[in-house]
Amino acid sequence: MADEVVLLNFWSSPFGLRARISLAEKGIKYEHKEEDLLGNNKSTLLLEMNPVHKQIPVLIHNGKPVCESLNIVEYIDQVWSDTSPLLPSDPYQRAQARFWADYVDKKVFPAQKKLCFATKEEKESAEKEFLDAFKLLEEQLGDKDYFGGDNFGFVDIAFVPFCSFFKNYETVGSFKMEEEFPKICAWAKRCMQKESVSKSLPDSQKVSELFSEIRKKFGVE
Amino acid sequence: MADEVVLLNFWSSPFGLRARISLAEKGIKYEHKEEDLLGNNKSTLLLEMNPVHKQIPVLIHNGKPVCESLNIVEYIDQVWSDTSPLLPSDPYQRAQARFWADYVDKKVFPAQKKLCFATKEEKESAEKEFLDAFKLLEEQLGDKDYFGGDNFGFVDIAFVPFCSFFKNYETVGSFKMEEEFPKICAWAKRCMQKESVSKSLPDSQKVSELFSEIRKKFGVE
Repeated sequence: MADEVVLLNFWSSPFGLRARISLAEKGIKYEHKEEDLLGNNKSTLLLEMNPVHKQIPVLIHNGKPVCESLNIVEYIDQVWSDTSPLLPSDPYQRAQARFWADYVDKKVFPAQKKLCFATKEEKESAEKEFLDAFKLLEEQLGDKDYFGGDNFGFVDIAFVPFCSFFKNYETVGSFKMEEEFPKICAWAKRCMQKESVSKSLPDSQKVSELFSEIRKKFGVE
Repeated sequence: MADEVVLLNFWSSPFGLRARISLAEKGIKYEHKEEDLLGNNKSTLLLEMNPVHKQIPVLIHNGKPVCESLNIVEYIDQVWSDTSPLLPSDPYQRAQARFWADYVDKKVFPAQKKLCFATKEEKESAEKEFLDAFKLLEEQLGDKDYFGGDNFGFVDIAFVPFCSFFKNYETVGSFKMEEEFPKICAWAKRCMQKESVSKSLPDSQKVSELFSEIRKKFGVE
């Protein structure tokens, strides 16, 4: 029996993109089901498949749901292990990869969100937090091609979806990404040369429109 | 060369306990280095080994640090894989285990913290959030011996350290753990029969004293 793979997603979600890129890396065909998150109209399927967090992405593999984006990436890597390994096999390298992917969730995600939706009063501290969070990643990347070394992998997948928002960060911040984070920007271009990334990331014009719309909703534009 | 294993820890930390229990399950000898967190006096070693989060626990294995408690447990499981597996090998079961361990971090930990340090005004909503968070775990455990089924494993290790605080939850809440969560309480007793757990969990009297001291610091006792 062929695998039945369904992804419950929202087109611009950086978390959903992790699943998309991983599936593309492994060459897995799947059905993409778009959730109406803006309309606050989650599908019955989403509520059934992720009753705890009620969030996308959810990967449904032969009827069984896997939730939480990094968990989905690890699952995909283990199930389709015969091609394009996403996590290193060495225990220490693996722990390092998990650490930095988790860092993206714990530090980068909230810092960039704060920057994007900061009021005038919050802007200075939000910008500092953002620059600090990205600076550590810039150092961690160093002169390597990818976060794990020579090959595209787990940390790249965790972080690369945020490249869609780099232009937006410049719109709201008083800095240029290229000047502050030249290594990350070169890495982003390198990642975009991979079809698994370039075909998965959303259209930047559409992202900018959505970004502006949400900022208006938050009353910061 | 014998493995050199050091754990930077604080005696009552539920996160540090995860590492202790995992090492005990695997029968690994290690040096326990207590950090002076109450005195806000972190060691140079801790700041060197975990410069990003500056938090315990840190497992130092042959000089190399592994940070973040669930990451440490996975690392221990992979390095010492010849005995007492902590994570299931089946990809789906593994994803489920990671999901529920992550649930403990994302929902249970903040909910119990909120309950413990709630002001009078916050108490009602904090208690509701706590009961809701634990209720999902009670349902997830169901009639199984352990969260993963017949064997003690990853989710048990993630959650069992919080048993040390069950009495404290009753002190600040208006409920009895045994009445609200009979299955979790029976499971806690089952876990305590394991030497890896009973010898790792801190003395309950000492925990109560610390709890009271911290509540005074927060101005809620």
